[in-house]
Order: sequence, then C-alpha cells, then structure tokens
Amino acid sequence: MNRLYHVALSPFCRKVRLTLAEKRIEVELVEEKYWDPSPDFLRRNPAGKVPILKIDNRFLPESQAICEYIDEIHPTPALMPRDREARYEVRRLCAWFDDKFNAEVTRKVMGERVWKKIMKKGYPDSKTIKEGLSAIKYHLDYMGWLLDQRRWLAGDQMTLADFAAAAHLSCLDYISDVDWNRQAAVKDWYAKIKSRPAFRSLLQDQLPGLPPAPQYAELDF
Amino acid sequence: MNRLYHVALSPFCRKVRLTLAEKRIEVELVEEKYWDPSPDFLRRNPAGKVPILKIDNRFLPESQAICEYIDEIHPTPALMPRDREARYEVRRLCAWFDDKFNAEVTRKVMGERVWKKIMKKGYPDSKTIKEGLSAIKYHLDYMGWLLDQRRWLAGDQMTLADFAAAAHLSCLDYISDVDWNRQAAVKDWYAKIKSRPAFRSLLQDQLPGLPPAPQYAELDF
Ligand SMILES: N[C@@H](CCC(=O)N[C@@H](CS)C(=O)NCC(=O)O)C(=O)O
Ligand SMILES: N[C@@H](CCC(=O)N[C@@H](CS)C(=O)NCC(=O)O)C(=O)O
Repeated sequence: MNRLYHVALSPFCRKVRLTLAEKRIEVELVEEKYWDPSPDFLRRNPAGKVPILKIDNRFLPESQAICEYIDEIHPTPALMPRDREARYEVRRLCAWFDDKFNAEVTRKVMGERVWKKIMKKGYPDSKTIKEGLSAIKYHLDYMGWLLDQRRWLAGDQMTLADFAAAAHLSCLDYISDVDWNRQAAVKDWYAKIKSRPAFRSLLQDQLPGLPPAPQYAELDF
Repeated sequence: MNRLYHVALSPFCRKVRLTLAEKRIEVELVEEKYWDPSPDFLRRNPAGKVPILKIDNRFLPESQAICEYIDEIHPTPALMPRDREARYEVRRLCAWFDDKFNAEVTRKVMGERVWKKIMKKGYPDSKTIKEGLSAIKYHLDYMGWLLDQRRWLAGDQMTLADFAAAAHLSCLDYISDVDWNRQAAVKDWYAKIKSRPAFRSLLQDQLPGLPPAPQYAELDF
C-alpha cells in the first residue's frame, strides 16, 4: 500500500495529504519524527525531511514535486490548470506560501508555539511569535485582495495553490492563530475548502498534550 | 523588451538567467537592490523578492514558476524531460538546492560573507560560515553520488536541476568557497555547464568592492 511519512502539523505534509485525498488515492499515514529519526529515515530521503511518499516501492520527497507528479499521473480532478499562464500562477502562489508565508508566519508562530514544545527545545520566544502574528495580517489581506477578484486563489478553479495556502492556515488555526474576521473573502474561501471530504483527515489530527482549539474542526467557525 | 529585475549573486536570479540564455530569450538585466527598494518594487512583486521577469508587459516573480513557464512557452531546447518520473526528479532536485542547499550553505556562507557587506549589515559571523562550509561537503558528496550514476544531475539530459545547482555553486565559487577537488564527477559536471554560452553572462558579473576569485571565470579551474 502507498504510505506517507509525515508529521501532523506540517504544512508541506498537509498539502500532500490534501492532494492525495482529493484524488482519492489511499495512503497509510506513518508518523516520522524527523527530530528523532528512525534508522531508515535518511535512506528514504537523504534531505532528512518529511513528507515522503512511498508509492510503487519508490520513496518520493519534496511536497511540490510530489503534488505535481500526482497531478500528472492522476489527472482528475485536476489541481493544475491546463492554461500555461494559469499554471504559472498556481506555482507562483504555492511558492508564496511554502517560501514566504512559511518563513514569515508558519515557522515563527508554529516553530515557537508548537515545535519547540514537541521537540522539547526550550521556551517560546514571544518576540518571534509577535513578528509572525504581525506578518500574517499582510498575508490575509493579500489573500483577500486575490479572492475579491477570483473564486479561488489562483483563478476560478480550485488548485494546488489553495491546498498550499490551506495547509499553512490550518496549522495556525489548530492553535487559534488566524483571525478569520479580518477578511470576509478569506473566511468564505476557507469554509469552502474546509468542508471538502479531502480535509476531513486533517481535522481529526490531535497532538498529544496539545489539543486543537475549539473551532479547529468546526465547519461553522 | 523583456526585462529581468535581479541581483548579481542571487542563485534564484541566476537560475532564471541561465534558463533564459539557454533558450536564447533576450532580456535587459536591471539591478534591483531589494534591501533598498525602488518605489515600484512592491507593485511589481508584492512578495518583495527578486527575480522578477517582465515579459509581455506582465511581471512574473518566483524563479521556479518562471523557469517552468519559460520551458512551457519555449519548449526547445527542453529543460524539463517529457517522462513524468524524470520530471518529478528534476523538481525534487530543484527544491533540494533552492530549499535545502540554500538554507544550509548559500544563505550561511553568502549571507555572511557577501550580503552583510553589501547591505552594510555588520560583520560576518564565523560560526555561521563554518557551518555552511561544513554542510557543503555533504552536498558535494551527494552530487558526486548522483553523477556517478547519471550524466546530468537528474538523468541523462541537462535540465533545470543542473541550472539550480550551478546557480548556487557559481555564487559560492565567486568567493572561492567550493572545493572542486572533493568530487571529480562534480568538477567535470561544472566544467561542462560552465562552458555553455548560457553561462557567459554570469561569469562576467562583478560586485563593486568585491572582485571575483581568480578561477571564477576560468573554464580550466
Ligand atoms: N521543501 C520541502 C520542505 C519540507 C520541510 O521543511 N519539512 C519539515 C517539516 S514541516 C522538515 O522535515 N524539517 C526537517 C529538517 O529541515 O531537517 C517540501 O516541500 O517538502
Ligand atoms: N522563492 C523565491 C526566492 C527568491 C529570493 O529569496 N530572493 C532573494 C534574493 S536571493 C530576495 O529577494 N530576498 C528578499 C527578501 O526575502 O525580502 C524564488 O525562487 O524566486
């Protein structure tokens, strides 16, 4: 059976989980605590990162490469548009979230509030958290601006870009760090994506010792 | 005319320059000092990063999205293979360099040795430089291992993955921080790629106050 080595609140792993679920590709989820790696971890991925998808007896790391590959081998429902300009836009926005949003928000807020605790690496640094919570405003506003012109982030079709964004925001929502009242269009968009069957498995995640915020799994939030 | 907003020793900009040059797409290079941005900078790219390609009167940021787009609109010579598994491998390796190599090596070594100086942001931190110079060994060995099995990094064809890797290594080579004698296969590979016409413009780069190391532009290094 296919397998996904992952950790629960990783946005990169979540993007892959959403993609697999949307395509109805079943995988067994295997938790890989990369900070305390199993002996085979580096053999599966010499980069030492999750996610890693085991499919057809090969091990595939790198979330964006995985998602595009899955979209190519299982083209329906399509998560990449056919039009080249539209495809560019999807890739630009995936990079926006996985590079910029990740560095400015996810890594700071989740890094301090969640990962330090789970990895037992000391106490959260409140200055870093503050920077992250300040930066998220710009990102929500940018998303709001996009969604005032488009049904989905990259255009009128749901794509990988929506999954990339939802993957990050859902991690932050687990600890209640998204202000859904800031941008009505963003809240509507998240409500749409959160109610998809593909999202269900994410909403069931539970970290030991760190239960999700009450609204996390609610479709009416 | 097409235009590329860039900075000289940025690996992301270099990957795009190599791709454009390999496809013989002419661009005017415009230096964009993002740490001292021009008023229009954030209008061109709300992410506040270079490279940004101006083409057909649109502004396109994000190096990987740009390169894949260019490869789709100008398919020859191809920088992405046709086979899906091979395309996955190219994308995985681009991410290897632009995510992992960048964080572990480029950002540390170039960040301390070059960018701090250019941005006038204080003195280089020798501990960070040491970490970067130690990590590069693992990366060169990994490349050597790949190149013992393949003509190019992602397979038997030159691809974007080679440009991503060469973009990072060429920046480090500018300050003489690549030990070309560590892995013979890597040296041969770099000699091949360095001698391509597409590489010429990179070899002419000169930072004011920081001339390139003597071997930087030599084809016999
Ligand atoms: N570019 C990678 C990033 C994956 C990533 O950074 N994963 C984190 C967990 S969220 C990780 O495994 N970090 C371990 C490390 O960097 O050593 C991808 O898109 O898959
Ligand atoms: N994911 C981006 C990364 C580009 C990037 O980080 N560029 C650097 C220069 S090497 C930059 O503009 N940094 C400014 C900033 O991050 O504020 C890409 O591939 O184009």
